Amino acid sequence: MSRYTLEVDLGDRSYPIHIGAGLLGQAELFLPHVAGMVVMICTNTTVGPLYAAQLKGSLIQAGAKVVHTVILPDGEEFKDWPTLQLVFDALLQHHCDRKTVLVALGGGVIGDMGGFAASAFMRGIPFIQVPTTLLSQVDSSVGGKTGINHPLGKNMIGAFYQPQMVVTDISTLNTLPDRELSCGLAEIIKHGAIADSAYLDMVEANMPSLLNRDPGLLAQVVKRSCEIKADVVSKDEREGGIRAILNFGHTFGHAIEAGMGYGQWYHGEAVGCGMVIAADLCRRMGRLTAAESARLTKVVIDARLPALPPRMGVDRFMELMAHDKKADSGSIKYVLLNGLGGASTSPADDTLVRQTLQELGAGD
Amino acid sequence: MSRYTLEVDLGDRSYPIHIGAGLLGQAELFLPHVAGMVVMICTNTTVGPLYAAQLKGSLIQAGAKVVHTVILPDGEEFKDWPTLQLVFDALLQHHCDRKTVLVALGGGVIGDMGGFAASAFMRGIPFIQVPTTLLSQVDSSVGGKTGINHPLGKNMIGAFYQPQMVVTDISTLNTLPDRELSCGLAEIIKHGAIADSAYLDMVEANMPSLLNRDPGLLAQVVKRSCEIKADVVSKDEREGGIRAILNFGHTFGHAIEAGMGYGQWYHGEAVGCGMVIAADLCRRMGRLTAAESARLTKVVIDARLPALPPRMGVDRFMELMAHDKKADSGSIKYVLLNGLGGASTSPADDTLVRQTLQELGAGD
Repeated sequence: MSRYTLEVDLGDRSYPIHIGAGLLGQAELFLPHVAGMVVMICTNTTVGPLYAAQLKGSLIQAGAKVVHTVILPDGEEFKDWPTLQLVFDALLQHHCDRKTVLVALGGGVIGDMGGFAASAFMRGIPFIQVPTTLLSQVDSSVGGKTGINHPLGKNMIGAFYQPQMVVTDISTLNTLPDRELSCGLAEIIKHGAIADSAYLDMVEANMPSLLNRDPGLLAQVVKRSCEIKADVVSKDEREGGIRAILNFGHTFGHAIEAGMGYGQWYHGEAVGCGMVIAADLCRRMGRLTAAESARLTKVVIDARLPALPPRMGVDRFMELMAHDKKADSGSIKYVLLNGLGGASTSPADDTLVRQTLQELGAGD
Repeated sequence: MSRYTLEVDLGDRSYPIHIGAGLLGQAELFLPHVAGMVVMICTNTTVGPLYAAQLKGSLIQAGAKVVHTVILPDGEEFKDWPTLQLVFDALLQHHCDRKTVLVALGGGVIGDMGGFAASAFMRGIPFIQVPTTLLSQVDSSVGGKTGINHPLGKNMIGAFYQPQMVVTDISTLNTLPDRELSCGLAEIIKHGAIADSAYLDMVEANMPSLLNRDPGLLAQVVKRSCEIKADVVSKDEREGGIRAILNFGHTFGHAIEAGMGYGQWYHGEAVGCGMVIAADLCRRMGRLTAAESARLTKVVIDARLPALPPRMGVDRFMELMAHDKKADSGSIKYVLLNGLGGASTSPADDTLVRQTLQELGAGD
């Protein structure tokens, strides 16, 4: 079975990502980080019943002194302070200290909240990430972004905080709903589109096997996507410059998520559609050929992601994008492709953006 | 008038501390950090009415695009999440972004909360500290510790986050209550005791002028105390080792604060008394002569700080110290002097600790 270890290079904050099937059961992976330590597993009501017992078994086998568990309600709507407080409550009720290791077992929300709790508890405790969705395995497991939402904006409160290690068990994808699998594929397509056209070819060619959850192929794409993201992040840990290209599809995607009401469109779905919109805009700007734009659209559709924007109205789209936090000093910065496999940020003519939205059916 | 600039050396997180009388009115100090920027002043109901207008004037003169103010209730009991949320609310209501500069104007609580808010808002925005109490000028303005309290423990949630600059205006001490001036002197005495006996001599010799708020002398001791703390912190930014010596007097002090109910004894008072207890313990362990222990006690009394512990009972003291977060793997680590002017951490025989507490009058 394919198994990979990838090092995210961030100086003294570097850490390994282990990728493979069945890793949750491999106690030796955890041993260097938890032997003799108190461990707090942070998970949710969906993932906990499926995998917390197996993880706890491995941690105990790896020599953890004691393993506590805190179970949060599942869902983006609980990515807030009152829910985060449950983690601090549990840590303090169990007399945890600065040496306690927090293990986040779950998808992106659990990773973001567990990471932020670890960054803030006693000003920082060790943190291990065990992502269980394809999206979190290829996206939030690299880059150290943690945080919670504020009633006035998503991810407004958080920290850059790197884990000690990421353990990506491909087997956990067997229980992932189809819709969430597609959301992970959206980010994988994005990685090919912005950085590696050969990778995009490979993903396109193997889409049926990926949708069938072939573990060897999934391990391979998780590894390649993490490499691409790690390469960008290691050049720009705190998102001052090039890291912005990871937001390809996100400016339009965020507008869809906000405009439709959070939770209606999943993040990956909005990004998939956002990439189709951005590709069409790139075509109008001469940055993609019609064939390239059409091909990216097809890959998105192949991944069972929505390709056409909701009929929110072009004005509403423009207004929501202007409010997005990526909007800087008035003009919106888009992430645009330079052919398939390259990207940079740039403003775009409002007229072209409106034409794109109009013709893709965003409505008046 | 004496004016100093001190550089805290923390690699790419280094920053200057400007110390002198009247600095709040010196727009040029702020200019490099705020010209063209949106600024949010974070202050409280006590300090705001005294100094926010002057600070705002200087910020505007320094070219700030706009200056907003958020005013928090004053007091340690508001060092909590709901109050911190007021800062995030204000930042988002005013459409602040990652380039907004947060200026914390106030004492230790405002510095800790403003710093934590700055660290967490959009995962980190620039932060300037303007400490207005002697305690915060010599203590929390160096070291980057920020945070809030949790119902189950003080400073349990926070971040290590360094400011861009600290502006210490000695003139703000003119409005400081006597009791708080003495609290600042406790930390100043501590700096001499753990690191520089000549400095302790100087503080002892000049105590009447310090209590009379001689601005030249105050600027001098704020500078020297910041130097000592900066020297320790630059060797150990995240408190893994030597930084612990800054907790001299704090193990006993925290027990007093917790045992008497927070707010009854001020932190500086508890530290003053804690140093007297620790000095007596050092004498019993042969680490201080009787004359040295007596002299440290006298300096604490000269600073109008309490020297004798409250009659909480020796058992209660021992129990509270065991719960303190500095307690590690069962045995309490004390910070003990090696003569006046040197310190290290060490366990101590419970019998000696009990004798010390008993004989100083902590009660049965």
